[in-house]
Amino acid sequence: MPIDSRHPREIRADIRRGTLAGTTAGLGAGHVQANLAVLPREQAYDFLLFCQRNPRPCPLIEVTDVGSAEPVGVAPGADLRTDIPRYRIYKDGALADEVTDATPYWRDDLVAFLLGCSFTFEWALMDAGIRLKHVERGGNVAMWRTSIECRPAGAFHGPMVVSMRPIPAAQLSKAVTASARFPGAHGAPIHIGDPSMIGIMDVATPDWGDPQEFAPGDVPVFWACGVTPQAVALASKPPFMITHSPGHMFITDVPNSALAAL
Amino acid sequence: MPIDSRHPREIRADIRRGTLAGTTAGLGAGHVQANLAVLPREQAYDFLLFCQRNPRPCPLIEVTDVGSAEPVGVAPGADLRTDIPRYRIYKDGALADEVTDATPYWRDDLVAFLLGCSFTFEWALMDAGIRLKHVERGGNVAMWRTSIECRPAGAFHGPMVVSMRPIPAAQLSKAVTASARFPGAHGAPIHIGDPSMIGIMDVATPDWGDPQEFAPGDVPVFWACGVTPQAVALASKPPFMITHSPGHMFITDVPNSALAAL
Repeated sequence: MPIDSRHPREIRADIRRGTLAGTTAGLGAGHVQANLAVLPREQAYDFLLFCQRNPRPCPLIEVTDVGSAEPVGVAPGADLRTDIPRYRIYKDGALADEVTDATPYWRDDLVAFLLGCSFTFEWALMDAGIRLKHVERGGNVAMWRTSIECRPAGAFHGPMVVSMRPIPAAQLSKAVTASARFPGAHGAPIHIGDPSMIGIMDVATPDWGDPQEFAPGDVPVFWACGVTPQAVALASKPPFMITHSPGHMFITDVPNSALAAL
Repeated sequence: MPIDSRHPREIRADIRRGTLAGTTAGLGAGHVQANLAVLPREQAYDFLLFCQRNPRPCPLIEVTDVGSAEPVGVAPGADLRTDIPRYRIYKDGALADEVTDATPYWRDDLVAFLLGCSFTFEWALMDAGIRLKHVERGGNVAMWRTSIECRPAGAFHGPMVVSMRPIPAAQLSKAVTASARFPGAHGAPIHIGDPSMIGIMDVATPDWGDPQEFAPGDVPVFWACGVTPQAVALASKPPFMITHSPGHMFITDVPNSALAAL
């Protein structure tokens, strides 16, 4: 995984001018990366309420003013139309375009939501001495749709999506406490152990991402996943929505450590 | 302070039928009490966003569906129009009525917001062995408008209001850790020590509530206060708003301990 230790401002400038166009894994030197969901003001209340009611899968770290693409709270001066490497444009819930600059699609009734992502709590896990094999291998985590229904809000409803990491039994407590400090990045696990209890019938076959390798004594640990809000929003077929492309996140000015609740 | 150790459901039934009409301090046997703010859907997005951007003074624990008076998340079966002992009705930001039953004022475009209150973290402080003299005396805490501006959201903006409790220097750390576990009830202090640094010029003269008594070695400790969201909402003169009357809170089914973040 390439490490670019420059300040997020400089990395975002490269992304804006198009000289940096790949995924953002390993970029930003320990700064919080965020999922993007942009919706018209008409759908924004229901989405904001959905996030408030489901903070584990939908940890809001910023909501812009209507029409503004500047996330003044977490990256003043940034432009959410240009500072992400790749965007997806959805119309009526269907993918309509994939672009590196969302400016032509911007409208003055849009609201941008930034949601914390698993990179932050994975950093916390590794910092606590927990090895994450999919990170070491440069692979993806395993994700499933579960039988846990999110609490609905207006037009938005659907099941919680989780990601799973195998954790040695001796490190389960540490995995909980290390991630729990970061409610802004999905927080503590929502389930530990038997996958069938949350509706996952085959832990070897994820709905998204890569199967994970279990060593003897490893226990499957499940965290709420940022795929949830996008999946839920798209399932309601909003007339218009912009998201980041998978793996191509927004890099904020906030250090991971500053997102700690305590 | 009278202690009524029945379940909140039974206490709310008494409030609903009018046999219990006073303040709720000491009622509900350690269950979370909540501030109420009811606004038309038209103002609800800005208020929800204001709370999201200012979680310390505005810790949302429940937002009802439009038109619904049932807080299904924290007290299923309860009715927010009748289960609070006393309500204030505001029109264009001015007090228009004070009632014990808000049903005649209910409309199908209203959204009810419940916000955590200081009773929960005061319980946590006392549970951690910190004496709160104003509670022992049955008095009120001291509150001030500060020089800390909340992050605005749409129509809503204004200064943060804080409450202050004198804490012995030896217990400062404990006061921080004990309250920090409860972000749903204002969380950790926002300031410790010199009141002038947050715009408070006379710590003996609060803007609201009672002056607090300092023993030698006591340090003033300031927490974000639930007066903030009501003051901010009313300052923008919304056409219509319902709140609880001071001290007459909504008693939820959630034990204080269950509101802990970790």
